[in-house]
Amino acid sequence: MSNYTIDDLEVGMSATMAKTVTEADIVMFAGVTGDFNPAHIDAEYAAESMFKERIAHGMLSAGFISATLAMQLPGAGSIYLGQELKFKAPVFIGDTVRTTVTITSINEKRKIVVLETICSVAGKPVIVGEATMMKP
Amino acid sequence: MSNYTIDDLEVGMSATMAKTVTEADIVMFAGVTGDFNPAHIDAEYAAESMFKERIAHGMLSAGFISATLAMQLPGAGSIYLGQELKFKAPVFIGDTVRTTVTITSINEKRKIVVLETICSVAGKPVIVGEATMMKP
Amino acid sequence: MSNYTIDDLEVGMSATMAKTVTEADIVMFAGVTGDFNPAHIDAEYAAESMFKERIAHGMLSAGFISATLAMQLPGAGSIYLGQELKFKAPVFIGDTVRTTVTITSINEKRKIVVLETICSVAGKPVIVGEATMMKP
Amino acid sequence: MSNYTIDDLEVGMSATMAKTVTEADIVMFAGVTGDFNPAHIDAEYAAESMFKERIAHGMLSAGFISATLAMQLPGAGSIYLGQELKFKAPVFIGDTVRTTVTITSINEKRKIVVLETICSVAGKPVIVGEATMMKP
Repeated sequence: MSNYTIDDLEVGMSATMAKTVTEADIVMFAGVTGDFNPAHIDAEYAAESMFKERIAHGMLSAGFISATLAMQLPGAGSIYLGQELKFKAPVFIGDTVRTTVTITSINEKRKIVVLETICSVAGKPVIVGEATMMKP
Repeated sequence: MSNYTIDDLEVGMSATMAKTVTEADIVMFAGVTGDFNPAHIDAEYAAESMFKERIAHGMLSAGFISATLAMQLPGAGSIYLGQELKFKAPVFIGDTVRTTVTITSINEKRKIVVLETICSVAGKPVIVGEATMMKP
Repeated sequence: MSNYTIDDLEVGMSATMAKTVTEADIVMFAGVTGDFNPAHIDAEYAAESMFKERIAHGMLSAGFISATLAMQLPGAGSIYLGQELKFKAPVFIGDTVRTTVTITSINEKRKIVVLETICSVAGKPVIVGEATMMKP
Repeated sequence: MSNYTIDDLEVGMSATMAKTVTEADIVMFAGVTGDFNPAHIDAEYAAESMFKERIAHGMLSAGFISATLAMQLPGAGSIYLGQELKFKAPVFIGDTVRTTVTITSINEKRKIVVLETICSVAGKPVIVGEATMMKP
């Protein structure tokens, strides 16, 4: 786990993690959040839907963004102020989601760090967005 | 589970759910996302931190927003296009998070529904934001 | 979540939900209940058994009945008085269990609602039974 | 785990297990079944309810019956044909549920064993019922 102070940070710094999304992840995410949308938990419904199979919760991938921010950049001790998410494409069981966060601006006076956050599968973005963190 | 068409929806319609956040929820959310930020899973670290005890992941409450949107309003068959989140205050173990979503605009031509999304604890907002959904 | 009073209810009203049963569900159900019957958790034992593969716990599907009663019909605030279950056929990993509950009688004076409860896979009943609820 | 044949069984034989029900059990049971009844997962709602605090799912205790039948008596290799459940009293977080099953009749020709099944907390029955098992 990284342990930066705000003085260690620079625009352009980047961190990444990847995780393969499994059926068990979706089952447990549904169970914790109460999101039993049939698109996630009913294979028969999903087969008739636009995406033809069960998809992962978008907020599961958003959790990977949160993990990358907290564990790597800007790392431990950051305070999460905000997140914008645009869901671009579905994530299916077996997909490996690569999450990359890149610093786009730093306000040293206000201790604010803004990062571009991208989740992609096989090089194709599935979520794009922006995180705002405070680094006290 | 609600089953609205876009013609059933009106600006001002609202839905809500509440869930008490438990230590087990935090443990499982950490396990599924990989967000092992010590603020969530290390009670000794948390005791020395700004919040004095372990806090829930912001994205766990974001999952409750996703659940309310999918299960209630705009309900089954909606496609999640985007979400903005501003984290206003921490959620502690034992807090009951009430999530409320309210339609603020509808674009019938483009099938787009925008909702204000608020998570609160004891009447105080912990996350405020906005969801954009497509209702095909 | 539905919020009926007993006056809203009528014989013949029905509600349904469906969930695909995954290996993760069986693992977690075993862990919570302590039912480590090898028919559920030992693939080698199961391969030699009458059903040729691991089967889900019958009480997992019974949990779907409870969920449908509580979340949909007769909905929030009902008190569960009794349940009869007849296990007709096994549920395998990957099966989508559709649970349907239908009101068969209402005693308005005693606030009692009786429902037929059926879990089926691909149209074939796997559990048939009857629930008795109080709706105060 | 016991491994009886039907010839080993006699009317009056009994087996028992006990488990303390925790908040984590309830959270996970809700997650696996989709039963997010606020009586189980919303402490604020529960405080205003008839029981004054969150209660466990009745089907969680039914799972303990299934566990006792499968693990102990009539043990491995039994096939669960049916279960009657009468819910007599709620189970709260921290309660220790003792489950006892006792053989009440045996039909050796049809290989059918019937058992009385009782779950109790501090000596007071919370579920009474009857299981029907086949022992091939």
